[in-house]
Amino acid sequence: MKKFEEKTINSEQIFEGNVVNLRVDEVTLPNGETSKRELIKHPGAVAVIAITEENKIVFVEQYRKALEKSIIEIPAGKLEPGEHPIAAAIRELEEETGYTTNGLHFVTSFYTSPGFADELLHLYITDELVKLKEPKSLDEDEFVEVIELTLDEAKDYVAEERIHDAKTNYAVLYLHALGR
Amino acid sequence: MKKFEEKTINSEQIFEGNVVNLRVDEVTLPNGETSKRELIKHPGAVAVIAITEENKIVFVEQYRKALEKSIIEIPAGKLEPGEHPIAAAIRELEEETGYTTNGLHFVTSFYTSPGFADELLHLYITDELVKLKEPKSLDEDEFVEVIELTLDEAKDYVAEERIHDAKTNYAVLYLHALGR
Repeated sequence: MKKFEEKTINSEQIFEGNVVNLRVDEVTLPNGETSKRELIKHPGAVAVIAITEENKIVFVEQYRKALEKSIIEIPAGKLEPGEHPIAAAIRELEEETGYTTNGLHFVTSFYTSPGFADELLHLYITDELVKLKEPKSLDEDEFVEVIELTLDEAKDYVAEERIHDAKTNYAVLYLHALGR
Repeated sequence: MKKFEEKTINSEQIFEGNVVNLRVDEVTLPNGETSKRELIKHPGAVAVIAITEENKIVFVEQYRKALEKSIIEIPAGKLEPGEHPIAAAIRELEEETGYTTNGLHFVTSFYTSPGFADELLHLYITDELVKLKEPKSLDEDEFVEVIELTLDEAKDYVAEERIHDAKTNYAVLYLHALGR
């Protein structure tokens, strides 16, 4: 839908990086005035709710430079150019957790920060995990630790704000709502 | 926690805007190698799950230039400098919906995109809405339309991807889990 559309008058590319691009658009507002919008382009992302045979949820802890701390998240990552979200979800699951799956189901997708970024995250779930015989390697600049928690433990982590990441909070709430 | 900490070797400020700042940090990884991180600084945000007397959920539709379309979200906005999240949540509720509230309850908080941004979103809920006698004005570059939906309608919107925004999907799932 295009309600309240903002028409681009001018677009200035500020930065083109490996993960994000930043541009500033000058726009005409619905009332005829002009304004500026700071806009991040992102390739999109995937995340996986992975449930083990023992009914534990698979998380990864990793350092997030943007936050200057390590946080606990469900396995996730960026889409590679041209990559289907399902392929990306399996790749990230394999690289980050050492599991693979034959049965991945779509949960939902959402924009993570539509006020300034176009990142769309696709969320999947699987309870058909198989340990990889030969673990895949992570990206060369990626370091993660796998943590498996029961749903009750994960809820405690949310309450303590040891888990406070949009996709991960959503995953914990989703499993709670399923009554798992 | 600082597990797998990445130490900053160099930090280059690329852009300082009204909404976001962008910098690129060169870091030392846990294995001694170096890498670059593209990092967005954001003031943080608030969002409100607002339930009317008729048990409808209050949404706003607005154009999101980052997506080049209008989407449906719960009332939300950025923190002003020094503003407490509760004050910001009430302000955004008043500006965007014409309601105010005397009873706002904390739901959760989460980082929206920790891979590249430090935006932390604080989510509140209220079912004690009061119509403002004198509506507050929106920011001069903000145009929104209020939409009130039942939970069932909102779930349909999620299924149809007319709602697909992290905080809003979370809100719909939260109300579903509450059994409202």
